[in-house]
Amino acid sequence: MNQEYDIKEINQDRIVDQIRCLGIDMIDEAHSGHPGIVLGAAPAIYALFAHHLMFDPKNPDYFNRDRFVMSAGHGSALLYSTLYMAGYPITLDDLKAFRQINSITPGHPEYRVTPGVDCTTGPLGQGFATAVGMAIAEANLNKRFGSDIVNHYTYVLCGDGDLMEGISYEAASLAGTLKLNKLIVLYDSNKICLDGETNKSFNDNISMRFISQGWNVITVEDGNSFELISKAIVEAKTCTDKPTIIEIKSTIGKYSKYEGTSKVHGSPLEKEDITAIKEKMDVRDIPFQVSQNTLDEFRFIVNSRCQNLTEQFNKNVEKLSDELKEELEFFMGDNKKIDFKNYIYDAPEDNMESPRDTSKKVLNGIVKNSPYMIGGAADTFGPNKTYIEDAGDFSKENPEGKNIFYGVREHAMGAITNGLSLHGFRPYASTFLSFSDYLRPAMRMAALMKLQNIYIFSHDSISVGEDGPTHQPIEQLLGLRSLPNFDVFRPADANEVIGSYKAIFAKEKGPAVITLSRNKLPILECTNANEVEKGGYVVIDPEKKPDGIIISSGEELHQVIEAAKMLKTKGIELRVVSIPNLGRFMDQTDEYFEEILPVEVRKIVVEASSSLSWNQIIYNEKYLITLDKFGKSGPYKDVYKEFGFDSESLADKIEELLK
Amino acid sequence: MNQEYDIKEINQDRIVDQIRCLGIDMIDEAHSGHPGIVLGAAPAIYALFAHHLMFDPKNPDYFNRDRFVMSAGHGSALLYSTLYMAGYPITLDDLKAFRQINSITPGHPEYRVTPGVDCTTGPLGQGFATAVGMAIAEANLNKRFGSDIVNHYTYVLCGDGDLMEGISYEAASLAGTLKLNKLIVLYDSNKICLDGETNKSFNDNISMRFISQGWNVITVEDGNSFELISKAIVEAKTCTDKPTIIEIKSTIGKYSKYEGTSKVHGSPLEKEDITAIKEKMDVRDIPFQVSQNTLDEFRFIVNSRCQNLTEQFNKNVEKLSDELKEELEFFMGDNKKIDFKNYIYDAPEDNMESPRDTSKKVLNGIVKNSPYMIGGAADTFGPNKTYIEDAGDFSKENPEGKNIFYGVREHAMGAITNGLSLHGFRPYASTFLSFSDYLRPAMRMAALMKLQNIYIFSHDSISVGEDGPTHQPIEQLLGLRSLPNFDVFRPADANEVIGSYKAIFAKEKGPAVITLSRNKLPILECTNANEVEKGGYVVIDPEKKPDGIIISSGEELHQVIEAAKMLKTKGIELRVVSIPNLGRFMDQTDEYFEEILPVEVRKIVVEASSSLSWNQIIYNEKYLITLDKFGKSGPYKDVYKEFGFDSESLADKIEELLK
Repeated sequence: MNQEYDIKEINQDRIVDQIRCLGIDMIDEAHSGHPGIVLGAAPAIYALFAHHLMFDPKNPDYFNRDRFVMSAGHGSALLYSTLYMAGYPITLDDLKAFRQINSITPGHPEYRVTPGVDCTTGPLGQGFATAVGMAIAEANLNKRFGSDIVNHYTYVLCGDGDLMEGISYEAASLAGTLKLNKLIVLYDSNKICLDGETNKSFNDNISMRFISQGWNVITVEDGNSFELISKAIVEAKTCTDKPTIIEIKSTIGKYSKYEGTSKVHGSPLEKEDITAIKEKMDVRDIPFQVSQNTLDEFRFIVNSRCQNLTEQFNKNVEKLSDELKEELEFFMGDNKKIDFKNYIYDAPEDNMESPRDTSKKVLNGIVKNSPYMIGGAADTFGPNKTYIEDAGDFSKENPEGKNIFYGVREHAMGAITNGLSLHGFRPYASTFLSFSDYLRPAMRMAALMKLQNIYIFSHDSISVGEDGPTHQPIEQLLGLRSLPNFDVFRPADANEVIGSYKAIFAKEKGPAVITLSRNKLPILECTNANEVEKGGYVVIDPEKKPDGIIISSGEELHQVIEAAKMLKTKGIELRVVSIPNLGRFMDQTDEYFEEILPVEVRKIVVEASSSLSWNQIIYNEKYLITLDKFGKSGPYKDVYKEFGFDSESLADKIEELLK
Repeated sequence: MNQEYDIKEINQDRIVDQIRCLGIDMIDEAHSGHPGIVLGAAPAIYALFAHHLMFDPKNPDYFNRDRFVMSAGHGSALLYSTLYMAGYPITLDDLKAFRQINSITPGHPEYRVTPGVDCTTGPLGQGFATAVGMAIAEANLNKRFGSDIVNHYTYVLCGDGDLMEGISYEAASLAGTLKLNKLIVLYDSNKICLDGETNKSFNDNISMRFISQGWNVITVEDGNSFELISKAIVEAKTCTDKPTIIEIKSTIGKYSKYEGTSKVHGSPLEKEDITAIKEKMDVRDIPFQVSQNTLDEFRFIVNSRCQNLTEQFNKNVEKLSDELKEELEFFMGDNKKIDFKNYIYDAPEDNMESPRDTSKKVLNGIVKNSPYMIGGAADTFGPNKTYIEDAGDFSKENPEGKNIFYGVREHAMGAITNGLSLHGFRPYASTFLSFSDYLRPAMRMAALMKLQNIYIFSHDSISVGEDGPTHQPIEQLLGLRSLPNFDVFRPADANEVIGSYKAIFAKEKGPAVITLSRNKLPILECTNANEVEKGGYVVIDPEKKPDGIIISSGEELHQVIEAAKMLKTKGIELRVVSIPNLGRFMDQTDEYFEEILPVEVRKIVVEASSSLSWNQIIYNEKYLITLDKFGKSGPYKDVYKEFGFDSESLADKIEELLK
């Protein structure tokens, strides 16, 4: 590495070919993988890593690095071989363990697993949209910390598949609107997808499409020339008011006997094809052989641009004010707690408030004063009540704005939120609970990456009322509760909303959801913000041993409490347990569980949502007053009554069940 | 209705205003609804219903009707008032019951609830994409039955929100590729969404965007002129090789004091505003007053185009061959069973077959010979094995083709499949189980409408192997099982795959899912195709009373059977129960349940997916060998081993649990 080279004399095509060789060797060794993109897109990734990407391979987490997202995640072999060549802490043995269990080179790129991987990818379109979130984060932090601290590009490598997914259009449309000029997408355009030629299903005029969405478009006709690709990236950087997509016309499986066909997309190459490919590149077929000279040349080229980046950055940090230094630590660090201790809640005089209105107060109290939070809504700021007053709207002109107008684009919102998280924010996203389905694939990515997103989903049951079954969630709560690493809160009133946020802000890892009723509800005397973090607790208890225990959550808790009052007049005395967070409650000790739900007392669950959430507490479906069918349109009290969730119906039913 | 009018003398703007008045009266009466679109888009819907839509209000199900999809489902008041005015069997009392419980005029349009509603809508973008499916169905049936039987347009009314959703881009891209010229979209372009002006988040150049996707684009500058809109529709019909979008520049909440603002989007108008609006239209403010003359005029105009449509259609049907007549009955009728009785399965010599390969055989055996089935894959024909050989690919040139190349567009595939169903097909859609999340919102629409779609999801567990956690489903099975009206099959081998299809084809209502392993597996002697319809059955039983019962499904059943063999050598004799369909099994009688799972024998579940599916059978999580965290990349046998699902680990674990 001490050797000096004259860059003009380096045969860079040899380096590109070396990347190719390693990639196909990895796939061959694993008997599994995607050689087409390795052979086709190696010039593009080389052009980027060698001549543009600002990074520190010794310090993969260098904060002001250019972000790179391999949206075409099946190109993992290409990415890993490039990262190895570029000097990241990845060994040849790691490459040989490609796609093997517990290796750092898994089948698709995984954040936190491989140094240099900025984002988990694989499900198509996600990477593209996540990068938009990173670019928003960069614009915001650049404005706040100055260009000496944050001033980088976000690059994406994507394929045809990414651009077919709806999420890519959504994200592109927003990126164009927000004029994110530091987002540069390399589009590996090879006209081949898994099922053959793309023209059977995909004939978008890519230039026109992206221009219509406010993008700068550059085309590279010869995708095998890293130099032309590099020039295009130079040109892209000159654009100051639009994101850029560079359409790189490449040949999938370049040099393979199946080049230009889908046969080379997703299965290992034949042995003789590998030999023939290497022959065409004038390389001897010795698996995993890397010429030290090629390695040194690549690292020399990188080093000539990227020397001392971390050192310089650290010096720049020293010049920051103490306040900014502390803020930056949050963005760079792993501790993503949000300070909640000074929050003072202002209850309304009539002691009535819809949970979404309480949420609005908390968010406005916390987000406005937190430099670490940013978020938005999918055209539902109004009903979700998640707009932060006086915090500005994020735009090219006002990158410090905290309110992101996502438009009716739940899915892109989900992925962009992931990008904001990956850049260090504690972001939130909001829509109706019913439409959380639209962003579910992006929420799964957050779960995989254990990102600390906060999802605020209002209109959380059939109590939505008039908008009817399309807008009334039934199975969504269960779906969220079943997402690994997710922490799901369904508070019943203002006290529990505050308790939920308190618990969420205190979390160190993983995403959280808070679901909210739209309806004005009494603030209960028996609920307790401080108990929410345990997941469940007793809200009403008779002096004598209870005749039964009713378990509930959210808005239904109010109906249950009313029902309990009615039954008390008949001499039936009930304990009422609120479970605002079922997952946390299930994680409590056996002793706590038994204290709250003693085994010898009959238990009944009341929740207007899927029964399957609750079988883990109550086996016998007879005692589950839940809802496994769709709702109906009508005033919400009528809808509750129709399905037996009004207090009168509940009182009758509970009385019968306790007989 | 017998009255004769001279159409030139009819003041049609009065009819438009009458539709408006009814719509805002409905919203006022309900204290709930969306007046903005009623006032803004009344001229568009009037132009369509009065001068173009071919329909028979007396026979709303008239098979060759032009389909109309209100993609902007929040415009339900506009739709219902128009349907009433046009003569559908909807009364003024029905309009007065708008958004009330159990009325036929729910908050958003619901298929099977309101005569004249061809599709449930509300979640944005769904209607637009579903209409693409209807247009595909029309093209296919037109070719097969001839233009005397099927020859109609599919119209959509959509808003800005629909066009922001990714699904609309996906569906538009495919519609352009397939040159669906009989699809005509009326785009109510008012530049206002719920959160205000669309320019904060949505600046697509709509003309350029749709041209880039192969569409014909027409712009109507004055959206208040039904005549200009009508002329645009005339022009759209002349296009023979592209779908058309007509951008109608309208004013949201026209005539309201809040016209042109988001204030008029989603809340009832103020009383004095209603009076003022009616004054501007020169109408007295008497709620729900309809001039008989206006009604007669509208119906006269409709009747002058649409007379005797059903009669003529019935005559044309009489001319069909008996075979075609029978086929047509399927498309027109409610009985959507698919004939399976002549299917003969050809087992491979080595008695080893991956479930997806068995599925391929069944599909090829059935679909090719069934005139009622059509389907496709989201760029995953290869791995899903759902391509039908020799059945042709659907295209403009070959509308009879049965294979639809959806591209990497799972969400649009889901909605298009709904459209195919709504037009009478029994369609199927396929992708990886992990990516079923992408089409979940469309599957929910299918569940709401009880459509008989078949979803074929391969790669159904961590046994996906090398592709890693992004491609390995965990929570998806639970998610599908929790969707109301869904029937979910997870067969273990070829016998159960055949049994699953048999049960699915015999269904009369509602969607079904079949999940499939990608791996080659033995065809078991103990499984039984005929038992699958019950959901669960005993596959192995010792002669003596079993020491324990192991319940499993899918690929894990094979591991369980191996484990049972190992334990038998140790003297532990197990019953093994296969549950290929948990929902159906839970619906069996208590007697059957007790016969299969007697209460006194210890039971253990083995399934590499969320535990929550199984608590309804086994309360104690100790006895659930399930998976509530994400998988890992690696060869599938290593992955199974890593998570304890290989037969050795299972044998050890089961032995321990039975001690």
